[in-house]
Amino acid sequence: MASDLTPISQLGEFGLIDRITAKFSLRHAQVAKGIGDDAAVVRSGEGKVQVFTSDMLLENVHFDLGYAPLRHLGFKAVAVNLSDIYAMNALPYGVTISLGLSNRFPVEAVEELYAGVALACEKYQVDLLGGDTTSSQQGLVISVTAFGQALEDEIVYRKGAKANDLICVTGDLGAAYAGLLVLEREKVTFKDRPDEQPDLTDYDYVIGRQLKPDARGDVILRLRELGVQPTSMMDISDGLASELNHLCRQSKTGAIIYANKIPIDHQTVSVGEEFELGPTTFALNGGEDYELIFTVPLSDYDKIKSENGLHIIGRMTDDAKQIQLTLDSGEVADINAQGWDHFEKGEE
Amino acid sequence: MASDLTPISQLGEFGLIDRITAKFSLRHAQVAKGIGDDAAVVRSGEGKVQVFTSDMLLENVHFDLGYAPLRHLGFKAVAVNLSDIYAMNALPYGVTISLGLSNRFPVEAVEELYAGVALACEKYQVDLLGGDTTSSQQGLVISVTAFGQALEDEIVYRKGAKANDLICVTGDLGAAYAGLLVLEREKVTFKDRPDEQPDLTDYDYVIGRQLKPDARGDVILRLRELGVQPTSMMDISDGLASELNHLCRQSKTGAIIYANKIPIDHQTVSVGEEFELGPTTFALNGGEDYELIFTVPLSDYDKIKSENGLHIIGRMTDDAKQIQLTLDSGEVADINAQGWDHFEKGEE
Repeated sequence: MASDLTPISQLGEFGLIDRITAKFSLRHAQVAKGIGDDAAVVRSGEGKVQVFTSDMLLENVHFDLGYAPLRHLGFKAVAVNLSDIYAMNALPYGVTISLGLSNRFPVEAVEELYAGVALACEKYQVDLLGGDTTSSQQGLVISVTAFGQALEDEIVYRKGAKANDLICVTGDLGAAYAGLLVLEREKVTFKDRPDEQPDLTDYDYVIGRQLKPDARGDVILRLRELGVQPTSMMDISDGLASELNHLCRQSKTGAIIYANKIPIDHQTVSVGEEFELGPTTFALNGGEDYELIFTVPLSDYDKIKSENGLHIIGRMTDDAKQIQLTLDSGEVADINAQGWDHFEKGEE
Repeated sequence: MASDLTPISQLGEFGLIDRITAKFSLRHAQVAKGIGDDAAVVRSGEGKVQVFTSDMLLENVHFDLGYAPLRHLGFKAVAVNLSDIYAMNALPYGVTISLGLSNRFPVEAVEELYAGVALACEKYQVDLLGGDTTSSQQGLVISVTAFGQALEDEIVYRKGAKANDLICVTGDLGAAYAGLLVLEREKVTFKDRPDEQPDLTDYDYVIGRQLKPDARGDVILRLRELGVQPTSMMDISDGLASELNHLCRQSKTGAIIYANKIPIDHQTVSVGEEFELGPTTFALNGGEDYELIFTVPLSDYDKIKSENGLHIIGRMTDDAKQIQLTLDSGEVADINAQGWDHFEKGEE
């Protein structure tokens, strides 16, 4: 690269997006939200909105066919996009899928991938609306766009949190990253001793979280039943540290969270011990959990306090952008991690 | 590939899509059209519909950075998707763009690509609604989804043509393919004699058609002014033969067209002579013209007969699926070409 050019790694993914999108403004008044949240929001009349999001998965960047079964991959490609629709407090109804396929894939492999897509369409009750299928000279490329809808009043953005709002997360965090570490280790082992069949039963949960994540539409429906409308929300795809950073930046708040409140599965803890990494690090910096993080006013505490699978991990503060983690020892650490940034990982 | 597996080339792109989509059915009554047309159509209330389409462009399959400037590429990626929205007789309002970038691209290259996207957004008056930016281990990947809207009554599908309807095409055909041939030839020449600057002024039109195609939104607006609603329509991305085949198959009609009525630019004819290929072949089998093909009832003849840039090339017949070409000599040939099929091209 010529010396007067800027490598993307210097800006990072979010810096690059900021730089590019600064040059675009919106022409259509019906567009309630363009770039900058989990999904775009477009008014379609009668107080209703359409919600759109796109995500691309590339072989050997986002998945490794050495251990990701095509069926799981098809499921995951849909689920991670629906996760962004749910994160707007909207309900998805469809997806389009564009595939780039090299000719090493037989028809049966494509059918296997689409079997996973069909499973996801069934589970989340969405329709396959279209797409594009083309040849690729290199690896497998999967690009999905998801379509959802809601009333405009129901939409929850990343911005909107206020000081003293409770910070909640769903499920448990860090398991998908723990699963990735185990799969990567087994891949190396398998290369050295190809005849040995690995026993992964002790890792079934974390591996499942990596290969076939769930999109938390159930949480969205449950919050509606509870009469809770979050003040801000997003899905946890890049790690808790990164997402909390987004919520605070867009809401102009700070946050304080408590390490001992972050929900972490015991298998994630075990893997952490094996790899000599603290499970809090997995939760903060590991990606791909596809749980939800959201904030609610203190007055909603009674509605959510005894809800299974919903965890209050801290609160928003008025100290804009200062995000703090209280450790078990009582010490307070700054969270300045930017989460999982694809462009910081070394590549060719 | 194991011998009991089916190579994709055996089915071709359309065969593969048919096989996959046969297993999907629609759950949502609001989805007026899923797979099988230029775009999906979803009812949004008050007689209005949302129209969606996705297309993926892969380096060295759909474009060659050896001769495609990034700015043109950004423009084209948007234009070819908008073309599908217009082909439904709908008007686009937005796009999302997902990019896969290898680290050989500096920030400045990404900015150049987005400068082309911005030009297209300005020209067609659409908004950039979002997307995804990620690293790629190989080439550049561009996936675009376009969003449009219309009244449900305005939507024009591929099906809907009746026997005796007039078949119309816009602009001229075959030029984009002629441009591709010239660019490929110059690439080889440049490899042999890198110091020679090629003079391409005699090819400016066909090269422009290849590198920076226009989406014919102007035609859609003009047809509305003329009070003409086509009975069927699609955009010409894979060549006239392929598109005519789609219209006939979905409308359950046959067609007869006249070689001497197919609009072909004189530069396309010249390139045809150089390459010893008939210009009709360019129009029938060459791809990427992004003009529109549509049918209108005979009764609309007076409204369109003297319209500049609109060409009546034949008519639909009731002889389902028989598609015929009348040559200048008076001979009649069957058109059975499937058009340009990516998977028929040899790859790695």
